[in-house]
Amino acid sequence: MGTALLYIGNKNYSSWSLRPWIGLRVAGIAFEEKLVPFDMAAGNPAFKAFSPTGKVPVLVDDGLTVWESLAILDHMARKHPEAGLWPEDQALRSRAMAMSAEMMSSFQALRGACPMNMRRPRAPIARTPAIDADVARIEALWSQSLALSGGPFLLGRFSIADAMFAPVVNRLDVYGFETGPEVAAYMDRVKALPAWREWEAAGRAEPWTVVEDEA
Amino acid sequence: MGTALLYIGNKNYSSWSLRPWIGLRVAGIAFEEKLVPFDMAAGNPAFKAFSPTGKVPVLVDDGLTVWESLAILDHMARKHPEAGLWPEDQALRSRAMAMSAEMMSSFQALRGACPMNMRRPRAPIARTPAIDADVARIEALWSQSLALSGGPFLLGRFSIADAMFAPVVNRLDVYGFETGPEVAAYMDRVKALPAWREWEAAGRAEPWTVVEDEA
Ligand SMILES: N[C@@H](CCC(=O)N[C@@H](CS)C(=O)NCC(=O)O)C(=O)O
Ligand SMILES: N[C@@H](CCC(=O)N[C@@H](CS)C(=O)NCC(=O)O)C(=O)O
Repeated sequence: MGTALLYIGNKNYSSWSLRPWIGLRVAGIAFEEKLVPFDMAAGNPAFKAFSPTGKVPVLVDDGLTVWESLAILDHMARKHPEAGLWPEDQALRSRAMAMSAEMMSSFQALRGACPMNMRRPRAPIARTPAIDADVARIEALWSQSLALSGGPFLLGRFSIADAMFAPVVNRLDVYGFETGPEVAAYMDRVKALPAWREWEAAGRAEPWTVVEDEA
Repeated sequence: MGTALLYIGNKNYSSWSLRPWIGLRVAGIAFEEKLVPFDMAAGNPAFKAFSPTGKVPVLVDDGLTVWESLAILDHMARKHPEAGLWPEDQALRSRAMAMSAEMMSSFQALRGACPMNMRRPRAPIARTPAIDADVARIEALWSQSLALSGGPFLLGRFSIADAMFAPVVNRLDVYGFETGPEVAAYMDRVKALPAWREWEAAGRAEPWTVVEDEA
C-alpha cells in the first residue's frame, strides 16, 4: 500500500484543492501531490485523465479514486482516526459537517466576485448586498463556532471545518473585508500555520495567470 | 432524550427536505416531522425561526440544531450505526460521500430547469447541452455504482447516496428523460419504496402551488 496521491490545481487559485491539502498537512497525514495547472481556455482537458468530474482535487489511494474535497477529507479521516480530522465531540462533529456542507453549497456571491488568489495585493472590491450577506453569515458561523468550542480553531483543534473554510480566510483578507476581533485573530492563526505559509509561498511563486480569477 | 424533529418544506417541491426524510424513513429511524410551507414571495420568513441558514431541512435532536441535508444524514448515521445509512464497505462509503458531495455542488443546469415536482404529469422539457451533460454524468455515476455494488440500490442496500439522489429520480421521471435499462430499473425500485410512495402521495395532496417550481 503506497502513499496516497492528491491531484491539485494551481496553488495560487485552486480553492477546492487547498481544502484537502491543508487538512491533511495540518493533521500530519503523509501524501504525495501532483499539481496539474489549469488550462481554462481549453476546458482543462488534462484533468479528465484522472478525475471523474473533470475537476480537482482528486485523491488516488490504494487504487481507489476519491473525488470531491469533502469526500477526500472524510476518507482520510476514517483511514487515520488518530489524526483527529473530525472533532471528537459528536455535537461539534455534526456542526463541522453542517458547516462543510454549507460551504460547498453556498456563498455563491462571495465565491463569484472574490476568487481565491494568494498573490493578490490586499485591496477592497465593489460590494453588493449579496456579497455582504455571505460575509455576514460566514462571520456569524465562525464566531459562534469559536465561542462554542473555545478555539483556537473553529471547533477546537484544526479540523475539516477549518480546511473547508481555508480559502475564505484568503478571500476576506485580500479583498479587504473588515471583521470583528475574534474572527481576525482566528484568521491570523490560520495564516500563521506552517502548512498555510508553505501553500501560499508556492502559489505566489507560480508562473501562471488565470485571467478568470483576477478580480 | 425525545424523538428528533425534522423540519421540512413542501413535499411536492422541497428536494433538499426529501433527502434526509427518505434516508431516515427507509433506514427505520424514528423522527417527528414538522412541515413549514414555502412562502417564496416573502422570502420564507418562517424558516428563520428554526434554521440558521433560513433554509430547510433542519433537524433538532436533543437540543442540537443540525442544518444541511447531508449533515443531518451523517449525524443520524453516527447516532444509529446499526441502521446502515452509510455503506459498510469503506471504499463504497468513500464513493457514497463523493457522490453526495457532487450532488450538493453540481448539476445546476438540471436543478435549475427541472425542479422536483411530485405532482407534475410526465412531459419532456426543452433540452440544452448543459442539461444533457448533467443527465449523462448522473447516468454514468448511477450505472457505475450499480455495477460496482451489485445493487439493488446505488451502493448495495439503500444508503445516503440514494437519499441524496432521490429528487433526481423524480426529475428524470417527470421531465421525461430516457435512460438505459439498469438505471430505469433502479428508478423503479426507488419509486416502489413505501417511503417514496408515502412522500409522493402527501406531496400530490398538498394545496400549495410554488410558481417558481412549475417548469
Ligand atoms: N465540489 C468540488 C469542486 C471542485 C472544483 O470546482 N474544482 C475547480 C478548481 S478549484 C476545477 O477543477 N475547475 C475546473 C473546471 O471546472 O474545468 C470539490 O469540492 O472538490
Ligand atoms: N444545501 C442545503 C440546501 C437547502 C435548500 O436550498 N433548501 C431550499 C428548499 S429545497 C430552501 O429552504 N429554500 C428556501 C430559501 O432559500 O428561501 C441542504 O443540503 O440542506
